[in-house]
Amino acid sequence: MLSLEAANELIWKKFRELPLEHVEVDVWEAVDRIMAEDVLSPGNVPEFSRSMCDGYAVLADNTQTAGNETPVLLSFLGEVPPGEKANMEVKEGQCAYVSTGSMIPAGADAVIMVEQTKIQENNSVLLFKPVIAGERIILQGDDLKTGQVIIKQGEKLNPRHVAALVAAGIYRVKVFARPRFAIISTGDELVDIGQEPAVGQIRDSNSYALQAFITRAGGEVVRRVLVKDDGELYRKELENAVKCADMVLISGGCSVGIRDFTAQAINSLPGEGVFIQGVSIRPGRPLIVGECMGKPVFGLPGHPIAPVILFKIVVEKLWHRLTACEETDMITAVVDFDMRPSLFTHLLVQLEKREGFIRAKTAAPENPAQTGAISQAHGYIWIKDLEKGLSQGQIADVYVF
Amino acid sequence: MLSLEAANELIWKKFRELPLEHVEVDVWEAVDRIMAEDVLSPGNVPEFSRSMCDGYAVLADNTQTAGNETPVLLSFLGEVPPGEKANMEVKEGQCAYVSTGSMIPAGADAVIMVEQTKIQENNSVLLFKPVIAGERIILQGDDLKTGQVIIKQGEKLNPRHVAALVAAGIYRVKVFARPRFAIISTGDELVDIGQEPAVGQIRDSNSYALQAFITRAGGEVVRRVLVKDDGELYRKELENAVKCADMVLISGGCSVGIRDFTAQAINSLPGEGVFIQGVSIRPGRPLIVGECMGKPVFGLPGHPIAPVILFKIVVEKLWHRLTACEETDMITAVVDFDMRPSLFTHLLVQLEKREGFIRAKTAAPENPAQTGAISQAHGYIWIKDLEKGLSQGQIADVYVF
Repeated sequence: MLSLEAANELIWKKFRELPLEHVEVDVWEAVDRIMAEDVLSPGNVPEFSRSMCDGYAVLADNTQTAGNETPVLLSFLGEVPPGEKANMEVKEGQCAYVSTGSMIPAGADAVIMVEQTKIQENNSVLLFKPVIAGERIILQGDDLKTGQVIIKQGEKLNPRHVAALVAAGIYRVKVFARPRFAIISTGDELVDIGQEPAVGQIRDSNSYALQAFITRAGGEVVRRVLVKDDGELYRKELENAVKCADMVLISGGCSVGIRDFTAQAINSLPGEGVFIQGVSIRPGRPLIVGECMGKPVFGLPGHPIAPVILFKIVVEKLWHRLTACEETDMITAVVDFDMRPSLFTHLLVQLEKREGFIRAKTAAPENPAQTGAISQAHGYIWIKDLEKGLSQGQIADVYVF
Repeated sequence: MLSLEAANELIWKKFRELPLEHVEVDVWEAVDRIMAEDVLSPGNVPEFSRSMCDGYAVLADNTQTAGNETPVLLSFLGEVPPGEKANMEVKEGQCAYVSTGSMIPAGADAVIMVEQTKIQENNSVLLFKPVIAGERIILQGDDLKTGQVIIKQGEKLNPRHVAALVAAGIYRVKVFARPRFAIISTGDELVDIGQEPAVGQIRDSNSYALQAFITRAGGEVVRRVLVKDDGELYRKELENAVKCADMVLISGGCSVGIRDFTAQAINSLPGEGVFIQGVSIRPGRPLIVGECMGKPVFGLPGHPIAPVILFKIVVEKLWHRLTACEETDMITAVVDFDMRPSLFTHLLVQLEKREGFIRAKTAAPENPAQTGAISQAHGYIWIKDLEKGLSQGQIADVYVF
């Protein structure tokens, strides 16, 4: 049976040319969107040297002997109001008043804070401290230099990027269009929301959980249907889904019968059909992946934990590879339990901060039908070395939901 | 000067009764919203015991002698299709076919996988393995029990909560309405987007950065204006802002003049006026906090790093206390540098995974005017013990943007 890495590699090979659209959006509306381009600063920021405080622009050399008892006297040349061009030059023995943000006049190479000076009546100023060259000045290009990369293709735009982009005059950025997902739920025992389940029936919760994970990942759900186990209906719904979406998720049972059903429907449409049937991971072993009309179709088992894990490690993984996005919500934590070697490759964990460290404890019992367990899990650990299990005290990567 | 903790305590005392609205939204649209209520499961999930696989529902006691050479023969009672009520009772020597998700018929206490059985012609089934009581059954209430808390007031709804909520029949939840923010930018040197700055002018980037952080924090910006340093205009705009928003952010200069301006405007409106002027943190020392017409008004210094840090540690902090939200995007990382004791209380850092650990290196130089530095910082460390600085190898909490 395929390993997770081999399965992801195979999926990547089939779909690396999947067409992706770009859209242009306002920078402050682009938070959490994946960048479709590198953005470089088109100019220097600031474009001129600015004062960091209210004070006097001076030649640092002129201030070296200044002290409380030995103030230096400079002649006052005038004021540079913030927002205006500095139309003067500061020469030996001179100073000019600048406010926070004012342009530094030519000649000056430092600013002394107004609190360390005293204005005199005869248009001159006393300085009580020396300053060094560059002091309290933001030099031209100190913040961003022409051509400097502000954000790269594949990065997710974070609020932290916004100030630099806007400061550089960039108000719109090109991001990847939200991938469109269709979700098909299957199972004769399922009822959709708004319907009260009869005895023997349960609510379809997987497709709504998937929708929430898709939305969080930056995608959108364009179609969501619940299909009874009827071959022709199923095939028809799959065709509709493939036509309107970029990727199709089928949330089905784990039963052999339903798995065959899913595989048959995928194989009945134009395209390569099923090329992965089963991956050596747990939960999620019965995963089916196929290609219909150029689009990826993922058959996810119905037990609630599997579709969530598979969405993260396979479906979102493909989306991230397509967009060159390397970001994961991964943290490191101290494992707070022992787990003997078992078949689990992906283990739900709860996180808690204790004694300075973030610690992970198990969140899910063996029973995979636990929506309650997922709801309490902050993330999961990928146990790559099954033969070793996990030991208390070791550091593990935790992928956070 | 007030410590950060003392300032936050004072702000909390003034505004702990700030009225908050609740709204009801669809569960799958509520991702990242803060819950305004505890949600308890109204019933058991599942409401009946279900099969985890395709197989035969049996009495475990009947199977104890089963083996490849010594199969047990049971008489076949019928089938329970998934989604239907089990209208039969399994007694000694009997079994019933169940699919994944089928209701377990009365009497049966275990399920044997179909792969470990063989159907015979005379309406009987051979079992080749023993099963134990409870095997492959999801018992009634195994997932969620009546009254079990699925999500608590103050928690942020995460995609992981959705499956449990929907499985329990909860499709709408009460969350806190998005707090409405007004942002006023001040500074004669600032130009708004769409306008090309003349020599001496710069673009107002702070209000857009704040908008992005507000959006990420679950708030919305209902008003955003750029005001020239004109007392009457400023007062009028502050009044408009206070009237339409829950909280007002003023992004102003750090200059003494502008600080006085902000304090005067806040004091000119009905209410207690300014009650905090300066906090012993860096960056962010010149913070002003006041109360106008019952609403909090925050005067944030204009250097780009300060408003971002202050938004996180003061403004969002108040919003989280008001909603009893304890969630922070905090991780632990290994400090990858030495920092001598300095005046910095909040230090921007970049994160990188190396040799199994997440490591933090400094992202910001001393110059606080760096939008470029913020754009490269993944978060910040709060250096609580300034006398010790930070040492390479120590573990620190990093608050992630």
